[in-house]
Amino acid sequence: MGTGSLMTKLDTFFAQNSFEEPHLVIDLDKVASNFTNLISALPKATVYYAVKANPEPQILSRLKDLGSYFDTASITEIKLCLSLGIPAEYISFGNTIKKQGDISQAFELGIRSYAFDSEEELQKIARLAPGSDIYCRVLVDCAGADWPLNHKFGCSTTMAKELLLKSADLGLQPIGLSFHVGSQQTQTSQWDNALHQIQGLYKNLKEQGIELSTLNMGGGFPTAYNANVPSIAQYGEALTIALEKHFGANSPRIIIEPGRYIVGDAGVIEAEVILVSRKNAGDEKRWVYLDIGIFSGLAECLDEAIKYPVTVVGKEADTKLGPVILAGPSCDSVDILYEKFNYQLPLDLKSGDKIRIHATGAYTTTYSSIGFNGFPPLSCSCI
Amino acid sequence: MGTGSLMTKLDTFFAQNSFEEPHLVIDLDKVASNFTNLISALPKATVYYAVKANPEPQILSRLKDLGSYFDTASITEIKLCLSLGIPAEYISFGNTIKKQGDISQAFELGIRSYAFDSEEELQKIARLAPGSDIYCRVLVDCAGADWPLNHKFGCSTTMAKELLLKSADLGLQPIGLSFHVGSQQTQTSQWDNALHQIQGLYKNLKEQGIELSTLNMGGGFPTAYNANVPSIAQYGEALTIALEKHFGANSPRIIIEPGRYIVGDAGVIEAEVILVSRKNAGDEKRWVYLDIGIFSGLAECLDEAIKYPVTVVGKEADTKLGPVILAGPSCDSVDILYEKFNYQLPLDLKSGDKIRIHATGAYTTTYSSIGFNGFPPLSCSCI
Repeated sequence: MGTGSLMTKLDTFFAQNSFEEPHLVIDLDKVASNFTNLISALPKATVYYAVKANPEPQILSRLKDLGSYFDTASITEIKLCLSLGIPAEYISFGNTIKKQGDISQAFELGIRSYAFDSEEELQKIARLAPGSDIYCRVLVDCAGADWPLNHKFGCSTTMAKELLLKSADLGLQPIGLSFHVGSQQTQTSQWDNALHQIQGLYKNLKEQGIELSTLNMGGGFPTAYNANVPSIAQYGEALTIALEKHFGANSPRIIIEPGRYIVGDAGVIEAEVILVSRKNAGDEKRWVYLDIGIFSGLAECLDEAIKYPVTVVGKEADTKLGPVILAGPSCDSVDILYEKFNYQLPLDLKSGDKIRIHATGAYTTTYSSIGFNGFPPLSCSCI
Repeated sequence: MGTGSLMTKLDTFFAQNSFEEPHLVIDLDKVASNFTNLISALPKATVYYAVKANPEPQILSRLKDLGSYFDTASITEIKLCLSLGIPAEYISFGNTIKKQGDISQAFELGIRSYAFDSEEELQKIARLAPGSDIYCRVLVDCAGADWPLNHKFGCSTTMAKELLLKSADLGLQPIGLSFHVGSQQTQTSQWDNALHQIQGLYKNLKEQGIELSTLNMGGGFPTAYNANVPSIAQYGEALTIALEKHFGANSPRIIIEPGRYIVGDAGVIEAEVILVSRKNAGDEKRWVYLDIGIFSGLAECLDEAIKYPVTVVGKEADTKLGPVILAGPSCDSVDILYEKFNYQLPLDLKSGDKIRIHATGAYTTTYSSIGFNGFPPLSCSCI
C-alpha cells in the first residue's frame, strides 16, 4: 500500500467526519503493512511493539493478530494488553524504572520478562518477580538520532557484567543485554557501533558460565518525515551484516522494539488554523496559530526535533506559498512548533482553514496534556 | 501565615492521607493570603486571576469570594468560571488566539472583554462579539523572566495604534493596552521599562480622540522557589513609582493577571522515589528516579527553567547529603528534571522513600500528559 492509497482512505474518512477539535486518524492497514515489512526485512527478529508509541486498543489488537509481542513501560500498559487477550508471555516489562508494587502486580499477572540497569532494580526484581527472565540495558553511543536516548537509561558494560553474574546468584534468568540507539535513528551504522561495543560481553560472560540467549536491539527504526531516511530493507540488511560480523554463526535470538516505525506514518492529524497574523505590517514571516500545539499532542516539536509534513486541505497544487512560523493555541510562549525550520504555507491561508499534519501516529495522543489552558487532549480514530 | 504554618497543615494532611501516585495539595488559606497581600501591595489594581495557572474549582471559588476577577485562556475555562457562579462581567477572554466558534460562544455567555494583537483577530471579535471591550497586547522587552513570554504574543506599538484606531470604526470599545513581562519575572525594573515603551501610545491615541481607560500589566509576579525574589511589597512599590513616573496623576485603571504568584507556593506535591542508581560503580552523582516527571506535571523543569525545592520525608536534619540527577519515570530521555543544577539529597535515599516538591501549585496539574507511558495525570486536593 503506497501513500496514494493511504491518503485516499484518510481523505474519505475526513470528508465523512467532522471534528470540532484536532483529531488523529490511524490507518490500521498501514500499521499492519509496516509490521509485515519489518518482519520481511528482519525475518529472524522477534518484534515487541513499544506500546508507549501509541496504545490505542485497535492498534494493539491488530498487531496481536499479526503475531506481535509487546514491550510495556508501565503496569497500566500491561493491564491494557492483557485486557485485549494478549498472553502474558508475549509481554515484557521494558522500563528499567519500576515501582515495587508494579513489579509485584506484573508478576502476579504472569509477566516473566523484565529490564533493569542497576543494582537496586535487580534486587527488586529478584525479590518481587523471582525466577524471571531479565535483561540488562547498557549504554551505547548513539549519534544520529533525532530524539536521542543515550543518557538516562543503561549502565556501563563493566557494571552490566557484574550485575548479570549476580543475577544468576539471585535466582533470576539472565537472558541478555538490551540497548537502544535512539528514537528516529537515521544512521544504520549505529547498530554496527553498538554491536561492536557489546559483543565482547557475550563472550566474556560465556567464559564465566553464563550463556546469554538473547540480544534486545531496542527500537529506533525511523518514520519518513521530511528528511531522506533509509528504507526498512536497508536497515534489515545493515543489521544482518552487523550481526554476522560480530557474532558469526552464533548470533543470539534477536528482539526488536519498534514503536514509531510501526505507527508513525500510519497517522494523520487534521487541525484548524485559528489565526494568521504579523507582528509588524512589513514582516515577511506570518505567524500561523493552530488549534494543536506542544501541549496538545505535538510535544516532539520541542526544539523542532521532529519535523512533520504539513499540508492545507482544499488548496490547489499551484497555490503560492510564503514562510510561516507555526504555533499552538495556548498562552505559553514555549508552545511554538516551528520557527527556525522554514515551513511554507499558502499566502491566502486564513482562520478556519483545515490543515493536515502527517506521520503523526506515534507519540502524540498520550503526550497530550490533560487540559492545559482548558484545551482537550488529542482524540483518535482507528480506521 | 508563614511557611511553618503552611507545612503543619500540609504535613497533617499527608500524614492522614496516603496516595499511590504523586499528589498535589493546595492550601486554600495560602491562596487567599497571597491574594490579599497582592491587593495590599497594589491597592489600585484590579486582579484578574489567570485561571490557566491552576483551574481547581475550589481555588476559583475561594478567589471569587475574595472579589477576584478572572482571566481565561479558552472557552472551557470560561464555562468553568460561569459554572461556579462567577458573573460574566468578572471574566475576560485573555488569549489573543481564539477560534471563531469560541468567540461566538463566549459572547452568547455574556463575556464582553477580549484581548487581541492582530488585524484578523480584531475583525473576528468585531463580527462575533460586537460592541465588546477590547485591549491590544503589545510586545515589550522582558529580560529577567525564568519562563519568558516575549515572542509569541503581542504586536508592535505602531501596529497597536493602527488597530486600536480601526477598532473604534468597527464598533468596538478600545479600552487599553496589555503587556506581559514574562512569567516568574524577578526584575521589578522590567515594568518600568515596559511602561516607558507604551506610555507614548496613550498620549498619542488621546490626541486622536481615543482615550484608553485601562492598562493591563499582565502577570509575572514570581513565586519564591530557590532564588532570592523581591517581596510583593517591593513589587507594589516599584510599580506604583513607575506608574507615577510615566502617567503622573492621569494613570489609567490598572489590571493585573497573576497566576503563579497566587497559587505557586500554596502547593506541595508528594511523590515517591522509584530507583536510586549509578551508571558506573565509581560515579559520584546518583540518578534518582521519581514517579513524577516532565510529562506528569513538572513540564516547567524543561531546560531546568523552574527549580522547585525538594525535601525528603522523615529524614533527620543532620542527614548527610550527596549530589543527584533527578529524573522522571517514563521511557523518554527528555524526562530528566535536574541534571545541571546541583541538587543534593540524602546519601541513604532509596526506592520507596517519599519526597516533597515544594511551590508546585502553578502550572502542574493541567500540564500533565493524559497518559504518556501509561502514567496517570497529576491528581490534586485542596484543603
